[in-house]
Amino acid sequence: LLAKGGGETEKQIYRFMKGDSDLALRFDLTVPLAKYVAANYAKLAFPFRRFQIGKVWRGERAQRGRFREFYQADIDVIGDGKLDIMNEAEIPSIICRAFTRLGLRDFTIRINNRKVLGGFFAMHGMGAPAEILRTVDKLEKIGADKVREILLGDCGLDEDQAAAVLSFTGFAGTTAEKLAFLEGMRGKNELFDTGVRELRTVAEALPGLGVPEERFAIDLTIARGLDYYTGTVYETTLLDHPEIGSVCSGGRYDNLAEYYTDKQLPGVGISIGLTRLFYVLGEQKMLNDNLPTAPCDVLVLPMTEELSPAIDAATALRRAGIRTQLYTEPKKFKAKMNYADKLSVPYVLFLGEDEIAAGMVSCKNMTTGAQTKLPVADAIVMIREDLAERNKGKVIVE
Amino acid sequence: LLAKGGGETEKQIYRFMKGDSDLALRFDLTVPLAKYVAANYAKLAFPFRRFQIGKVWRGERAQRGRFREFYQADIDVIGDGKLDIMNEAEIPSIICRAFTRLGLRDFTIRINNRKVLGGFFAMHGMGAPAEILRTVDKLEKIGADKVREILLGDCGLDEDQAAAVLSFTGFAGTTAEKLAFLEGMRGKNELFDTGVRELRTVAEALPGLGVPEERFAIDLTIARGLDYYTGTVYETTLLDHPEIGSVCSGGRYDNLAEYYTDKQLPGVGISIGLTRLFYVLGEQKMLNDNLPTAPCDVLVLPMTEELSPAIDAATALRRAGIRTQLYTEPKKFKAKMNYADKLSVPYVLFLGEDEIAAGMVSCKNMTTGAQTKLPVADAIVMIREDLAERNKGKVIVE
Repeated sequence: LLAKGGGETEKQIYRFMKGDSDLALRFDLTVPLAKYVAANYAKLAFPFRRFQIGKVWRGERAQRGRFREFYQADIDVIGDGKLDIMNEAEIPSIICRAFTRLGLRDFTIRINNRKVLGGFFAMHGMGAPAEILRTVDKLEKIGADKVREILLGDCGLDEDQAAAVLSFTGFAGTTAEKLAFLEGMRGKNELFDTGVRELRTVAEALPGLGVPEERFAIDLTIARGLDYYTGTVYETTLLDHPEIGSVCSGGRYDNLAEYYTDKQLPGVGISIGLTRLFYVLGEQKMLNDNLPTAPCDVLVLPMTEELSPAIDAATALRRAGIRTQLYTEPKKFKAKMNYADKLSVPYVLFLGEDEIAAGMVSCKNMTTGAQTKLPVADAIVMIREDLAERNKGKVIVE
Repeated sequence: LLAKGGGETEKQIYRFMKGDSDLALRFDLTVPLAKYVAANYAKLAFPFRRFQIGKVWRGERAQRGRFREFYQADIDVIGDGKLDIMNEAEIPSIICRAFTRLGLRDFTIRINNRKVLGGFFAMHGMGAPAEILRTVDKLEKIGADKVREILLGDCGLDEDQAAAVLSFTGFAGTTAEKLAFLEGMRGKNELFDTGVRELRTVAEALPGLGVPEERFAIDLTIARGLDYYTGTVYETTLLDHPEIGSVCSGGRYDNLAEYYTDKQLPGVGISIGLTRLFYVLGEQKMLNDNLPTAPCDVLVLPMTEELSPAIDAATALRRAGIRTQLYTEPKKFKAKMNYADKLSVPYVLFLGEDEIAAGMVSCKNMTTGAQTKLPVADAIVMIREDLAERNKGKVIVE
């Protein structure tokens, strides 16, 4: 962890001693993956595919949407020595399917290839490609003028080179037009040619893998800051909320576990900052308020001293898979209804003397206010159908 | 956390500084609950019910079935000032439903009430009830003779008192017989009488709440070591594996959050040591090997250079909700099949030239070895039905 990070990273690591053990809280999900794959190399079948959703801890200053303890979700595919390019097309298809399932519609997965950029820089005799990449990566944030300044200054490019970089990354057009533009420059640099071939393979595979044309785009400005990406790189932005930045990023790397093993383990991965994503979605009022989020679906309220009929009704509801709470606190009727309101329970079932005598329950729909007297079995059918309808909604609404 | 635990606990806490912050890894799920309820008291509706499944860390010596990082699952119901006795009957009904759903059958939820024990000790003029409780709690582990020694020694009881404790806790019989035995002693101590009334209420409510008579028992030896339980206490044992000890324990307490708030917050809760439980179930060969645990249900193997038909087949399977992996590494056929074997994938789909020309796929059931050539749509139906059948099994088998 310390070997991988720079000074900034080191400051953010929660590191401590317990007895003689030098320990740290999990900082990301990549280092544990590297350690796991290296330790279990002989037992694993490659390509090894894993997803992981878990907490990580970073000693940053907490601020709006930045947390010191938060959830990340990672997907990676690790090869043994080699890894086919098709895996780099699979990653966006997983992201597209997951986001669509959650209800997101207006997002774009922007893809690029570091070999294309690196090859282009080499083609124009530019040194320090890592620095140029980091600078190009800031295009969207700081604009072309600032980028030109840095290219001319820190990166040591001349005017022509800087102009070439900006005109190249600024090329506009459809996926087909961009690929044609890149094809036109082939034959001068091997790395570039490989990058173009890979980018074409990925872009052409995506529709067949279920990613509609309007959900992805080749974007020659995407570079990703991290040095260790070597091929396809991804960023995902929400069209209506570009200010949020990338909600899901990653790419191809050549060696996952160099600190743990001599084996060459290339991979491709992507990471979603779940806590930050959902914080932002909440701020943007994009989380569906209509989905049932109450701790139970039905609150059973016995109105008599004898609890057996209410207990039996609650047990019948639970057996039918309905999340049911039995409320037995000796409170006034009004306090009980306040409780149901405060929890936003969709249904309340009353069992008073009349209901018990008739072998019925009174069922109140707390959304509509409608109240019906009916047998428990009928209430179960009615509630189940209504809940299925309410649960049809997606988590995210746009 | 430090206030609550004794010296042993303190040694096990992973405690460290980050800047000026005195921090510790989560030691249990109860302290965070207390902090949460105290901090959100005004916003919560009481009774507040919560479950939590999460990791906790303890600096113990790691050994068979004991881990330093492990999952706990907690259920608690917290009242504001008061909490109805029926909540103490709900807890075993949740445990019974959860364990039954997992496939466990031969378990007993053993219940007792600390007021019954405390009242009985007071009735016989015994001091130091906490020490006697801790001693009685060891009955199953160390036997009656050793317990008698400690009662006579450390607890300072006389021969008659020790004999009374052992005869009382040793009373054998059905639930009804035990309740009748306790009823016979009423009228001498108020605490005892309250305890008997509570124990009867809980025991009588359980069948209606869905707990069959054979799944629970009153056990007068159950005391629980922790001082803070004040009413009903629970332990759950597996009938065929008493050596495992309690897999799920808890009880009623009078004040959850005394270190955080002046509010009186009584509650009842129970905790499952998930990691240890599943470790033990694995050791006992009680985890169902027949459930599909492969990372995918279908491995799609393209046998031609042109990948489109295989990609389309994989996308169709995924759209149908079938977990599908597309294998595109340029390996020999044998290596591909070894990969499928190593992952224990239930199905492999081949797309060779013949299949593609016929608009079909060859589908191999890796369990039976049967191979069929059929359209993708038919393969989807067949695989879905078979998977539903395979997934019917329970997680735990006895």
